[in-house]
Amino acid sequence: MTQLPIREDLVGRSPYGAPQIDVPVRLNTNENPFGPSAELVAELAKVVADLGSNLNRYPDRDAKVLRADLAKYLNGESQVNLTAENIWAANGSNEVMQQLLQLFGGPDKTLVAFDPTYSMYEDYCRNTFTKYLSVSRNEDFSIDQKVIDSALALNPNIIVLTSPNNPTGTVIDVAEIDYLLNKFSGIVIVDEAYAEFRPAGTPSAVSRLQANPRLVVVRTMSKAFSYAGARVGYAATSPEIVDAIQLVRLPYHLSSITQAAARVALRFSDQLQSQVALLRQERDDLAAWLSEQGFEVAPSGANFLLFGTFGDRNLVWEQLVEQGVLIRQTGPEGWLRVSIGTPDENLAFKTALTQVTNRTNGK
Amino acid sequence: MTQLPIREDLVGRSPYGAPQIDVPVRLNTNENPFGPSAELVAELAKVVADLGSNLNRYPDRDAKVLRADLAKYLNGESQVNLTAENIWAANGSNEVMQQLLQLFGGPDKTLVAFDPTYSMYEDYCRNTFTKYLSVSRNEDFSIDQKVIDSALALNPNIIVLTSPNNPTGTVIDVAEIDYLLNKFSGIVIVDEAYAEFRPAGTPSAVSRLQANPRLVVVRTMSKAFSYAGARVGYAATSPEIVDAIQLVRLPYHLSSITQAAARVALRFSDQLQSQVALLRQERDDLAAWLSEQGFEVAPSGANFLLFGTFGDRNLVWEQLVEQGVLIRQTGPEGWLRVSIGTPDENLAFKTALTQVTNRTNGK
Repeated sequence: MTQLPIREDLVGRSPYGAPQIDVPVRLNTNENPFGPSAELVAELAKVVADLGSNLNRYPDRDAKVLRADLAKYLNGESQVNLTAENIWAANGSNEVMQQLLQLFGGPDKTLVAFDPTYSMYEDYCRNTFTKYLSVSRNEDFSIDQKVIDSALALNPNIIVLTSPNNPTGTVIDVAEIDYLLNKFSGIVIVDEAYAEFRPAGTPSAVSRLQANPRLVVVRTMSKAFSYAGARVGYAATSPEIVDAIQLVRLPYHLSSITQAAARVALRFSDQLQSQVALLRQERDDLAAWLSEQGFEVAPSGANFLLFGTFGDRNLVWEQLVEQGVLIRQTGPEGWLRVSIGTPDENLAFKTALTQVTNRTNGK
Repeated sequence: MTQLPIREDLVGRSPYGAPQIDVPVRLNTNENPFGPSAELVAELAKVVADLGSNLNRYPDRDAKVLRADLAKYLNGESQVNLTAENIWAANGSNEVMQQLLQLFGGPDKTLVAFDPTYSMYEDYCRNTFTKYLSVSRNEDFSIDQKVIDSALALNPNIIVLTSPNNPTGTVIDVAEIDYLLNKFSGIVIVDEAYAEFRPAGTPSAVSRLQANPRLVVVRTMSKAFSYAGARVGYAATSPEIVDAIQLVRLPYHLSSITQAAARVALRFSDQLQSQVALLRQERDDLAAWLSEQGFEVAPSGANFLLFGTFGDRNLVWEQLVEQGVLIRQTGPEGWLRVSIGTPDENLAFKTALTQVTNRTNGK
């Protein structure tokens, strides 16, 4: 590969991706542990059967019906009043992010994010030749006005706030988002991939859209909708930004099947949200248990927990794999991240962690 | 939109896309007029029903099984000996192209294509900050050594050959591709979106892969596989380039459903190829008819014909729309492009064109 005339900044890099290891309990990529229900799957198969004979035709390039359905969902979820004109959809929130950086980024532009955070932001920047900078969060992973001022001092074109943040789970208070929106005239992206798992009563940044045409809130169906395999992400923003994205989107980027599959899941959103409520409870219970065991646990509004700290996190991670439990080595040195599974999976994780910790302590 | 801090080179641009007009006969986007068969659709619905309960899990990031199936298909289609390591798949050939330019293009790189050709190449370049240049084909739309030398004189990093070419239908002789491969050390992309419609006995550029690790042949399932709505494109190239693409591809870019849907269509490739044979015959018949009517027709190895020339092609196009037949204004001034439809649709086109021409001639 080093012989190829690839871009110099790619030479020697490795592709993004968590190790894919076949173990009984997979708590490493923040997937929803509950698969779509039998009714949802039956409806999906029916919808695909209905559209199948028309697959020789290109999909609706603008995905208008899906975008209207997504607006309706957000209106119910966050008490807002959006329409299809406020929504853009793509193959996962990462395609949405790449499109935003193709539009607002580029060789002479800078994006700032808040460390520790989702490592793909740097990759989106590299893919779009955008300069990536980051500022550190507070020690408890929070973001306050002082942290935001540090970001503004870097004179960025784009600022990405992640709430709840990956891999820490930290929810950003909407007052801090308001502070940023008041002080910054560039593009603000709030990545709300895990929004549905936030504590009840926490406002989403979509409530700030009407007053802020340069705000983009990015969401995904991968987590709360149990649809990681279907690849549907979306943005809620101003109609002006939705129009502009169409200058860089690839034509017909979203297949007819993906558009239809997303609409099926949206029809089942009540059922899916009841599983989200269960996962929130499981998260809070697991956080309490980890604290009781003497671990530090970052307060989380997502479907995962960052906990630690370990002198040798790689050893703990490996020993958990030996016990059939796969979690993730990510975040600051010494911390590990565990996705919230089914009650049985969470129990298996607790049992395995207890065994590993006892072994490490020489018990 | 002009108030937004978007990239300067995007200001005032319009999104790519043919006008979508609801008329009885749509011969404007080179879709296959035959929808997938009832058996294929039934199999597709079954496959989706089977994978549906697992959609909470991310797809296979590397799409390995699909890539093996695509290799097998090409091996049969072009008498080559490829494996999954030679194949990369994405959401349409345009995502493949964008990934290639993210890898080999960029601000200090140049791509050269041969005019008139597919207008999206310039958009891929803009999306990836790559300099786009073009050289003119010969007057009959062919490419010979002289034309290739003109391209090489521009000192490009990437050269795109399109065969059969869109919108002219022109097939490039493999001898010219060999000439280029011998003289050029950069990346050669041969876009074979319409390859299955080429005249029998014409070698595909995939036959040149083994000796040329910097050659990439791009294909799609949109046309020959009647799958424009499913969004599956792929590249056949060296394992080194497949590995390198993974540095820029978005993780999990290809949904579990898309991967499975593509595999279903590949299982029906014999059935689908028999429709391709019918469309080839229809194309040749329509080309002969157009010539008989006194039109110029570019020799085509694709599922469309470029014909002309008209003093006012927009008037002809509008009058055809009035007759319920939608074709495309594209290519050099004075020419129009018609996609090959079903025998009934082609008859409707001939009838409408006769009426329009008689009217224009004052008959």
